[in-house]
Amino acid sequence: MEIISGGVTAPKGYKAAGIYAGIKKKKKDMALVYSVVPAKAAGTFTTNLVKAAPVIWDRKIIQEYGMAQAVVLNSGVANACTGALGTENNEKMAAFMASELGLKKEAVLTASTGVIGRQLPIEAIAEGCKLLKQELGEDKEHAGLAAEAIMTTDTFAKQYAISFELNGIPVTIGGMSKGSGMIHPNMATMLGVITTDLAISKELLIEAIREDVKDSFNMISVDRDTSTNDSLLILANGMAGNEEITEKNEAYEIFVKALHTITTELAKMMASDGEGATKLFECRVTGADTKEQAVILSKSIITSNLVKTAIYGNDANWGRILCAMGYAGASFDPDKVDLYIESCAGSLKLVENGMAMDYSEEMATEILKQKEVSAIADIKSGNCMATAWGCDLTDKYVYINADYRS
Amino acid sequence: MEIISGGVTAPKGYKAAGIYAGIKKKKKDMALVYSVVPAKAAGTFTTNLVKAAPVIWDRKIIQEYGMAQAVVLNSGVANACTGALGTENNEKMAAFMASELGLKKEAVLTASTGVIGRQLPIEAIAEGCKLLKQELGEDKEHAGLAAEAIMTTDTFAKQYAISFELNGIPVTIGGMSKGSGMIHPNMATMLGVITTDLAISKELLIEAIREDVKDSFNMISVDRDTSTNDSLLILANGMAGNEEITEKNEAYEIFVKALHTITTELAKMMASDGEGATKLFECRVTGADTKEQAVILSKSIITSNLVKTAIYGNDANWGRILCAMGYAGASFDPDKVDLYIESCAGSLKLVENGMAMDYSEEMATEILKQKEVSAIADIKSGNCMATAWGCDLTDKYVYINADYRS
Repeated sequence: MEIISGGVTAPKGYKAAGIYAGIKKKKKDMALVYSVVPAKAAGTFTTNLVKAAPVIWDRKIIQEYGMAQAVVLNSGVANACTGALGTENNEKMAAFMASELGLKKEAVLTASTGVIGRQLPIEAIAEGCKLLKQELGEDKEHAGLAAEAIMTTDTFAKQYAISFELNGIPVTIGGMSKGSGMIHPNMATMLGVITTDLAISKELLIEAIREDVKDSFNMISVDRDTSTNDSLLILANGMAGNEEITEKNEAYEIFVKALHTITTELAKMMASDGEGATKLFECRVTGADTKEQAVILSKSIITSNLVKTAIYGNDANWGRILCAMGYAGASFDPDKVDLYIESCAGSLKLVENGMAMDYSEEMATEILKQKEVSAIADIKSGNCMATAWGCDLTDKYVYINADYRS
Repeated sequence: MEIISGGVTAPKGYKAAGIYAGIKKKKKDMALVYSVVPAKAAGTFTTNLVKAAPVIWDRKIIQEYGMAQAVVLNSGVANACTGALGTENNEKMAAFMASELGLKKEAVLTASTGVIGRQLPIEAIAEGCKLLKQELGEDKEHAGLAAEAIMTTDTFAKQYAISFELNGIPVTIGGMSKGSGMIHPNMATMLGVITTDLAISKELLIEAIREDVKDSFNMISVDRDTSTNDSLLILANGMAGNEEITEKNEAYEIFVKALHTITTELAKMMASDGEGATKLFECRVTGADTKEQAVILSKSIITSNLVKTAIYGNDANWGRILCAMGYAGASFDPDKVDLYIESCAGSLKLVENGMAMDYSEEMATEILKQKEVSAIADIKSGNCMATAWGCDLTDKYVYINADYRS
């Protein structure tokens, strides 16, 4: 398994584009991911009761056909809470793009991100679809342009690619995603597109992505707000030429491992680029009796505003971590907890059996000052663990969100 | 029912003191509430698995005896995650205070607030108990000093008092509480003491306070962090001379109503004085099928970081409110929601049947600029409702908490 540069165009048979269509003020705002042949399509979507129009469309396409050939995405307007007109505009976006590509509209998945409640500027979308078709390219620059065009408050474009071999045949997976506010995915994240040239059955593609998000995108949080638009889409066009995977054999396991590397890396990029964040905050809970218990505890820690502000202040205020575990809703014995912090600057045990160690505050601050910091809580009961990723909460998060629409 | 000035010393037979004992750097840090005769005692406490030593002590006293004569409180150190030494120090605090007052230690309830994980400076506590005894007074100034001494990051002391008549006999209730971070009470709030001269049976006193917090303290949130120390204590010393309330008669209803006024007002003060907050944010969900549904939806709105930052920015970004309802975990039809905002500057309908109205953004900003603002979401299904109180999320919250221990 090898990490390669690039993103959604890394596998065979995929092209991409990212352009400015006039939805946002000056920045790129439309992207296209296109497979030259029909691809198996799967996805996971937000659990929010308020679902954006593109989420409803994609779920229907994937359930009814399980195939698609393109994903058209826009940033700037989320097309959520937009009623019948929003549904109509979303279908128009798919139809415009399909017409440019010579496809039927049911072959085009859609995704939107941006302000809730505003209607899509449909003329701009129509022009954007034309431009996207013209600008399509298969090199990594084009993948980068697409990743850039779906950014909202993100500070960098997020993409990742991996290649591996199945019986001597090279297979590639590429992906892109965007954050960076309203991030607390539940079954999916706010706009991610994964492409692969793997040949795999529809059923196993669906199962792979559903299982995967539980340990990747669903384990990150920027602000505990599960968005209305969360969508993770995966296209598999079979152009690698491998024997189609139709059972959970070794080839499936290799694919799942590669997929997980991509989704985890994209998820971590999203957490580290959380709105206003200065660092990635990883939290591992070990010694749990069940995986679920470890998930609940680790997510409670990374979502606590008080923990997040302490991390911002490089303050080893570990009481807040134990407090966040205590109200998480999973059982454990507070008097058995060991707590460590860790980063490239070193590792330090802060708490043993629920009580403070006599540690150096200077050392603790030095560890927490780094760009990627971890907290490890060992609850010393069973053998299960989970890892969650978040970020610090900063004054910049407040500025960004007090002022988002203006 | 009449609102009167003062706090915990307003009812007959109560004295209070607030002094500087040297636990914090310069501010008052110990308080005492004392009843001249033994009082019925009840309380509700944090649901956090990590419970501070005083919480464990008070629960035991209330369960075993149901009577107490004093509450000694300190700020600066929470006495949570402090192991066996913490338990011992808490018992010493009760014993020191009991000895000064000529009581046995089981007649003294305790409460602590401040940094988690640090041990109580026990010599300072011993000296503090002596001083508290010397400084006891029954006027409203002394109640104010006690309310001041339990403050941590609070910007003002919180107290309230009400008097009412039962068959011509005047009865009084007074109360004090403190916020203002780690506030997301669950069955109780971070340090509240209510005093009354009412005569009431132990059982009904317990029931009254348990029922009350569901609609008062448990409906506020500053940062979704349920503290390790939440304690609401109530003392009823019977000195009003009313016929003891032993059943749910009219007198009980009058008491419950007066109690609810005090707890709600204290709760709202705590929400409005949330760390770094510039305004009180009230959210009412109406038209729900069940009370529980309305509670879940209203609390989800007031706890969303994205809603809270928009409120700070005076931005009617209503999509975030619908989004927070959508992931709350209670069912409703997004296409039926009407949403209003309201303050002393006016009232405005933003959303009808889940879609934006054509409202004036200037008017919306004017409404949201006020010190107390409300959002009302009508989900148009049933006849139940709930109200929750929170505050905006500001850069100052981040500064306070990135830097709390230094």
